[in-house]
Amino acid sequence: MLLTKSILEGNRLALSRLLTQVENDSADGRAGLVELFPYTGKAHLIGVTGAPGTGKSSLVNQLALYYRKGSDKKIAIVAVDPSSPFTGGAVLGDRVRMRDLSGDEGVFIRSMATRGSLGGIAQKTASLVQIFDAAGYESIIIETVGAGQSEVDVARLAHTTVVVEAPGLGDEIQAIKAGILEIADVLVINKADRPGVENTERALRSTLELAHPTKRVFRHHGKSMSISAPTIDSTIWIPPIIKTVATEGKGIDELAASIAKHVEHLHQSGDWVARDRARLGSEMEMLLREALMDRFLENIQQQKYEEMIEKVVNRDISPSEAVTALLNGNRK
Amino acid sequence: MLLTKSILEGNRLALSRLLTQVENDSADGRAGLVELFPYTGKAHLIGVTGAPGTGKSSLVNQLALYYRKGSDKKIAIVAVDPSSPFTGGAVLGDRVRMRDLSGDEGVFIRSMATRGSLGGIAQKTASLVQIFDAAGYESIIIETVGAGQSEVDVARLAHTTVVVEAPGLGDEIQAIKAGILEIADVLVINKADRPGVENTERALRSTLELAHPTKRVFRHHGKSMSISAPTIDSTIWIPPIIKTVATEGKGIDELAASIAKHVEHLHQSGDWVARDRARLGSEMEMLLREALMDRFLENIQQQKYEEMIEKVVNRDISPSEAVTALLNGNRK
Repeated sequence: MLLTKSILEGNRLALSRLLTQVENDSADGRAGLVELFPYTGKAHLIGVTGAPGTGKSSLVNQLALYYRKGSDKKIAIVAVDPSSPFTGGAVLGDRVRMRDLSGDEGVFIRSMATRGSLGGIAQKTASLVQIFDAAGYESIIIETVGAGQSEVDVARLAHTTVVVEAPGLGDEIQAIKAGILEIADVLVINKADRPGVENTERALRSTLELAHPTKRVFRHHGKSMSISAPTIDSTIWIPPIIKTVATEGKGIDELAASIAKHVEHLHQSGDWVARDRARLGSEMEMLLREALMDRFLENIQQQKYEEMIEKVVNRDISPSEAVTALLNGNRK
Repeated sequence: MLLTKSILEGNRLALSRLLTQVENDSADGRAGLVELFPYTGKAHLIGVTGAPGTGKSSLVNQLALYYRKGSDKKIAIVAVDPSSPFTGGAVLGDRVRMRDLSGDEGVFIRSMATRGSLGGIAQKTASLVQIFDAAGYESIIIETVGAGQSEVDVARLAHTTVVVEAPGLGDEIQAIKAGILEIADVLVINKADRPGVENTERALRSTLELAHPTKRVFRHHGKSMSISAPTIDSTIWIPPIIKTVATEGKGIDELAASIAKHVEHLHQSGDWVARDRARLGSEMEMLLREALMDRFLENIQQQKYEEMIEKVVNRDISPSEAVTALLNGNRK
């Protein structure tokens, strides 16, 4: 395909076009992904997640600027905001970013304001990241709003997950979610010039002790499948807590240093390979689920499906009985 | 089954036991669900969603108290907090609630602090709600943290969705997500005694105008399936904006009145039936996906699956090529 050749040569317009095709799940998009896949596996994927109001976007912005100043590394930013489909954060965030990063050919920013099933969003994010990876972007920052399991799943695509907190975001206990802390490789308290920063840090430290007793547990996406579960070296990585004031560029160097240290840790412990394997295993599983459903729907009679829903709506049979009946009917 | 008989007779202990069995996805739990399903379809399901710090839990608490004072209706509260698995919000929320609602046999509070795939959480919430419905709980409040698509999906189980905002929650534009507004039937600005309430209201109103131009669009869960898409009457319902101070019980009567008005609208427009159908259709679809995957994994050789992952990890083939190969291999 001409497009993928141009992308491998560094053509931004071609890159942009394929990203759109993949977001639209077009046949060309899928073909492009298959062609580019052999070129993936080199980029460092950084997930940045945090509740609204923590200043994630500014932080990501500053981090990208920092990387660009220090080296020639190409940086991509994929901003995922599933809850903001037609107006909203992602688009605005882009505009703010443009001020600082525009004109820099080494930075590519892509917002996914797409809506859809969760699996769909994680899947599309994974695909966009693969394209950037193949196109030679060495650091890919995946930015998500981290208040739900969905965003945690998206962030888990990354090699290094940065969780952003901020002082005084409502109830301290609600803001600092153990579930999100568990996936954090690096913790950031942004807006660290605000009052309450000591409380936030104290709360983070005590929750961290709960979340990281001895070793890191890697959880597989979705239904647990022993056959694709990765073996993770239990070499201990204690997530550091970094204080930043992104709007003033404070603490960004320390954050970048922690991220670099984590990359080193990933390589030494074998986690780099293990996470790659887990990520690809999850992706295969998601694709498999979709394909199975598609195949099933192709083979079933629409009328039969409708009849079954009617029976459920009338409370004649339960949803699970309906599914069993459909599956048995289809097997014959 | 003895347990389901006891539940239909109003036994709380039996109810509690089956809820646990369903949460653990045990065979008894599944059997109980099938037995109770014919008794469902009577309850009014109220979804309450909002970002952390909006005071959702207090609001739900007050709403339950209000309902109990005004009538003999049995009320269930299902609190879903997927991002807080092992410490965290849900459990704490229960303790706070216990103070006000304990000792009232007409109220049943259940927290789901379970973790897992998103579909899994929505599915389990749907199941718990069905049990409460069969057990004669006339109003079932489903409380979720509404910052991600996952929570939106859970909230969408409801007949009436209440979206809770609060003044001064960080960036105004980020806090008020158009995507969440779109699913709102009733909007609440809680903590309305705080500064900034006028700004929040103004922002809500202008976003509402974007989100509800003429009619309400009902979106199907997950992959769009035209064969189960409901036809929704386009009778216009403009979500009212209610100001409350839940901690002081202010505005709760107005909120309850709006919810009652929405129920009336649902019946008149035919949306009550349409939403029931859409919900059950989604549930069937989710169960079908799980069942297809389970059936596939039963029939495939573990070694073959592992080999395929290895090929993907080595970038010999892409994930989608691997899935195609697995499906074709399995079909033979």
